[in-house]
Amino acid sequence: MKIDVLSLFPEMFEGVFGSSILKKASEKDAVTFQVTNFRDYADNKHSTVDDYPYGGGAGMVLKPQPIFDAVDALSAHSETKPKVILLCPQGERYHQRKAEELAKEDHLIFICGHYEGYDERIREHVVTDEISIGDYVLTGGELGAMVVIDSVVRLLPGVLGNEDSQVHDSFSTGLLEHPHYTRPSDFRGMKVPDELISGNHKKIDEWRTKETLRRTWNRRPDLLENYSLNDIEKKLLAEIQKEK
Amino acid sequence: MKIDVLSLFPEMFEGVFGSSILKKASEKDAVTFQVTNFRDYADNKHSTVDDYPYGGGAGMVLKPQPIFDAVDALSAHSETKPKVILLCPQGERYHQRKAEELAKEDHLIFICGHYEGYDERIREHVVTDEISIGDYVLTGGELGAMVVIDSVVRLLPGVLGNEDSQVHDSFSTGLLEHPHYTRPSDFRGMKVPDELISGNHKKIDEWRTKETLRRTWNRRPDLLENYSLNDIEKKLLAEIQKEK
Repeated sequence: MKIDVLSLFPEMFEGVFGSSILKKASEKDAVTFQVTNFRDYADNKHSTVDDYPYGGGAGMVLKPQPIFDAVDALSAHSETKPKVILLCPQGERYHQRKAEELAKEDHLIFICGHYEGYDERIREHVVTDEISIGDYVLTGGELGAMVVIDSVVRLLPGVLGNEDSQVHDSFSTGLLEHPHYTRPSDFRGMKVPDELISGNHKKIDEWRTKETLRRTWNRRPDLLENYSLNDIEKKLLAEIQKEK
Repeated sequence: MKIDVLSLFPEMFEGVFGSSILKKASEKDAVTFQVTNFRDYADNKHSTVDDYPYGGGAGMVLKPQPIFDAVDALSAHSETKPKVILLCPQGERYHQRKAEELAKEDHLIFICGHYEGYDERIREHVVTDEISIGDYVLTGGELGAMVVIDSVVRLLPGVLGNEDSQVHDSFSTGLLEHPHYTRPSDFRGMKVPDELISGNHKKIDEWRTKETLRRTWNRRPDLLENYSLNDIEKKLLAEIQKEK
């Protein structure tokens, strides 16, 4: 997969692209990253990328020309039409399903604005997908782009070392994860539940299933609505509701 | 405000803390950032921070000791009890309201796990707030911490240059923003709406109010449910629904 990012703050990406799973993915050639400052595409002599809004008001608006030309240049050598993703609060709410969709693409281009708004013509004529990572206000699109990129790249084949760890992630199963414990079994008087130390695998599985259901029921009951419980899970959930 | 981050990948934060609004906020002494590798607090000779899960299974679990001790050390000089925030998919869904709450605190400590799960005793005895930035799976808590930090720091007094730009942000008003346009008025045949070029401020205001309502109605009708429309807005929304 090829990932291009358009940003006025390319240095923001260095630490993130140079560490952890994104670094590994790029060393394994699962992905190539390129961050482009779209100011380099501004065709005016002061390399201006923004201008005052029509109709007045505070704040600046990103001009169409630098972004149109940057996306054209980055798309020129792509065999398939790249997805051009705009991070913005008005976008579709990001979700694991969207990460799975994007992981099937060959080329993603992320447009990150900063402080300013975007000229609407960018949204209408260049962008294929508008994404919001949540209902909160960020200074720019850069962090949103990093979030989407991390969630997509870790799904690419061969990127995660332990294939299992992907399967058990929250949201992948549709429910929240059960609690985890590691040594020591008694840490400053706080103890690990007996079931997990029992060595009895049936007991351990049942404890985990029950605590998965309990956590989901307590914290995100909405996730249970779209989940079809088997008979054991039904029985355990009934117990949980009774215990409460 | 003092912000501490506990992470095994401190270098991930360099680009983000060293750029843009977070850099400015720290130059203005509105905030101080410190990233601590909690491996430095591990009291075993190999500086191990994780261990196998009780009950078996794939993946590793962060041990309680290094995180308990790191949080103790970082809290020692705080006059008020710091908020200790764990980024995890099981947490409370992050929202602008939570950013506003956190912006009132003096000291925030973020705990970022990576790949692994957390020993449940960390969650129960150290953490005060569990936050999820959205329903998608990330490799670690670092990006979530950056997102929360950016959204909080920009709310601190004196951080955003133009006080206005905060007021008009999406979610601050409760509705999505209207489209923006800047020069040229005709870009490769794509034109700016006549109303915005009219110079008539009443017309411009009405256009903006109507397009704010249209965008919210089309994309996030749920936001209108919690918003009380005035008479003009009611009339405009009725027009939009008729136009559709």
